[in-house]
Amino acid sequence: MAMSSNIQTLHWIGGVDGHLRLIDQTKLPVERIEIDCRDVETVWEAIKTLRVRGAPAIGVAAAYGVCVGLRNALDADEETFFRRLAEAAYYLATSRPTAVNLFWALERMKQAASLLRGKPVSEIAAALLDKAKAIHEEDRQMCRAIGRHGAELLADGSGVLTHCNAGGLATSDYGTALAVIFSAAESGKTLHVYADETRPLLQGARLTAWELQQRGIDVTVICDNMAAQVMREGRVQAVVVGADRIAANGDAANKIGTYGVALLAAAHKIPFYVAAPSSTFDLSIDSGAEIPIEQRDPREVTHGFGRQTAPEGVKVYNPAFDVTPAELIAAIICERGVIRPVGRESIAALLP
Amino acid sequence: MAMSSNIQTLHWIGGVDGHLRLIDQTKLPVERIEIDCRDVETVWEAIKTLRVRGAPAIGVAAAYGVCVGLRNALDADEETFFRRLAEAAYYLATSRPTAVNLFWALERMKQAASLLRGKPVSEIAAALLDKAKAIHEEDRQMCRAIGRHGAELLADGSGVLTHCNAGGLATSDYGTALAVIFSAAESGKTLHVYADETRPLLQGARLTAWELQQRGIDVTVICDNMAAQVMREGRVQAVVVGADRIAANGDAANKIGTYGVALLAAAHKIPFYVAAPSSTFDLSIDSGAEIPIEQRDPREVTHGFGRQTAPEGVKVYNPAFDVTPAELIAAIICERGVIRPVGRESIAALLP
Repeated sequence: MAMSSNIQTLHWIGGVDGHLRLIDQTKLPVERIEIDCRDVETVWEAIKTLRVRGAPAIGVAAAYGVCVGLRNALDADEETFFRRLAEAAYYLATSRPTAVNLFWALERMKQAASLLRGKPVSEIAAALLDKAKAIHEEDRQMCRAIGRHGAELLADGSGVLTHCNAGGLATSDYGTALAVIFSAAESGKTLHVYADETRPLLQGARLTAWELQQRGIDVTVICDNMAAQVMREGRVQAVVVGADRIAANGDAANKIGTYGVALLAAAHKIPFYVAAPSSTFDLSIDSGAEIPIEQRDPREVTHGFGRQTAPEGVKVYNPAFDVTPAELIAAIICERGVIRPVGRESIAALLP
Repeated sequence: MAMSSNIQTLHWIGGVDGHLRLIDQTKLPVERIEIDCRDVETVWEAIKTLRVRGAPAIGVAAAYGVCVGLRNALDADEETFFRRLAEAAYYLATSRPTAVNLFWALERMKQAASLLRGKPVSEIAAALLDKAKAIHEEDRQMCRAIGRHGAELLADGSGVLTHCNAGGLATSDYGTALAVIFSAAESGKTLHVYADETRPLLQGARLTAWELQQRGIDVTVICDNMAAQVMREGRVQAVVVGADRIAANGDAANKIGTYGVALLAAAHKIPFYVAAPSSTFDLSIDSGAEIPIEQRDPREVTHGFGRQTAPEGVKVYNPAFDVTPAELIAAIICERGVIRPVGRESIAALLP
């Protein structure tokens, strides 16, 4: 059962004046609802509120988001068209500050447009939609390649712990961290996956568990604070997570809690792998110290389950990400190959 | 503002035919509701479902629970009275398998009764109520002593992380781990407390944050998976937690997630303290490997807050406790003094 045939995280409907349709991931796993984004504000809101999330999927959504922003500029003059394009790209870039794929995808869209200056606006719009679809297709290919490279790292019969959701719902196809698991399973290996529920928004319990269940892979949900115990009991032989941004030295930003899992894995001598496409690397930043950490709404923590779970007015600290230092990462699984050991030189060699 | 004057975790109402009243902690912090336990089933249910929780408070509740179980046996013959006593104690012992204080309190009640065999039943019942009240009062004194001993370990201006709730609500007075914080604050130190929310039942967010707020101590709620990041940012200079059972070698069972916090503290060179009364020690067990770990209802994880947060039918692993090995514990703060370093000899010296 190929999930890509059943579940499309996001896809474009219609032609150049069409729109973006995406699964509202905040409603999973209880309801499966798709929303249609016909204006750039709806795309922005979907990224901001995590209806679509995961660095690669955000990049694809942002690329299509530019096309959505140009739907009403198809008859405009060139100046207006490019102003709308710049406004849409600028606005979409404000939706999530940490995911580098967002900026990367927007940059590619802007570059594609600027190369076509002087052509009819309708032609530029069509080329931009093609570019967004190309980014989408690249993402599919990237998932498959990461899966192939990473599958070798997982032994038959092993337990694998993952944090948050770096699965099909985080990408266009079958994920980054989960691609490794899916690919290993497709090659005939039996795996036992432990999914950290991943507070505050529970992407692990809601999305990762659902994806694995859909594909018939053995999955057990745990609370984040149970990971150490599960490791201690010998149930886990590898950790695989995704990443939102990777610095030139290999430090990797990912969902809050990832750094803690990496420390726990180190304490139990369990290899900790990061699976991420080359678009996740930001070689302009030297180390993880330069990665800005998004702070999110305290109510995600205090009112996350439809019920108030902390006293009124209490202070909350709610960073969306943390940074795992390169020395805790056994390997980075990229679509171009496996980076191992992780360091400035090995990264530069694979990503010149 | 002494919390004990405002908030009584549990107390006995009336005479020997009276009953046990306790705060339903599952309703905090949104509602403050007390429930009256007039039969032993209600006490059992309150312990089982964590309406009353925390090892010391469970011990006191169980002691009073024996008295509740004897309310209708005050006119019985001696044989019936002792049979009811044994039944109540046996039944209450099945409510939570890990908390040693439960068995310890029940044992003390049974011993007190057996010493009075031959006396009128009404006299034995009165003595048992006195014994339960004595256990209750000892618990109050214990909290104060732990607070005094532990306060010295916390520097003025420091950040302190705690997990779960080892506060006034877990005891009869002002807690074990939180007693250390309360006592340090009373002595004029300014502390910044980080409270792990403590999934699945959120005792940290619901109870610890509430208690600290009630006492005007600076508190910030974090999700469990944020502890590593908070430590990395240098916000935490000490960790203080409670314990449910401590083995002869110093291995300490406490709320799930504690072991992970201890590993994270070690990785950041932050001292990790356990605050627990001597009743928490079970010298009959050699090491933590012998401590049974209660497995709880998967629905605590998947349906914890009135909303389904994981896919239907997914497997869940939900251990209530984990065991922190003695080597990760900088000191155990006991009502008799501070055990440091933690080991078989130092424990035996303080608890002969």
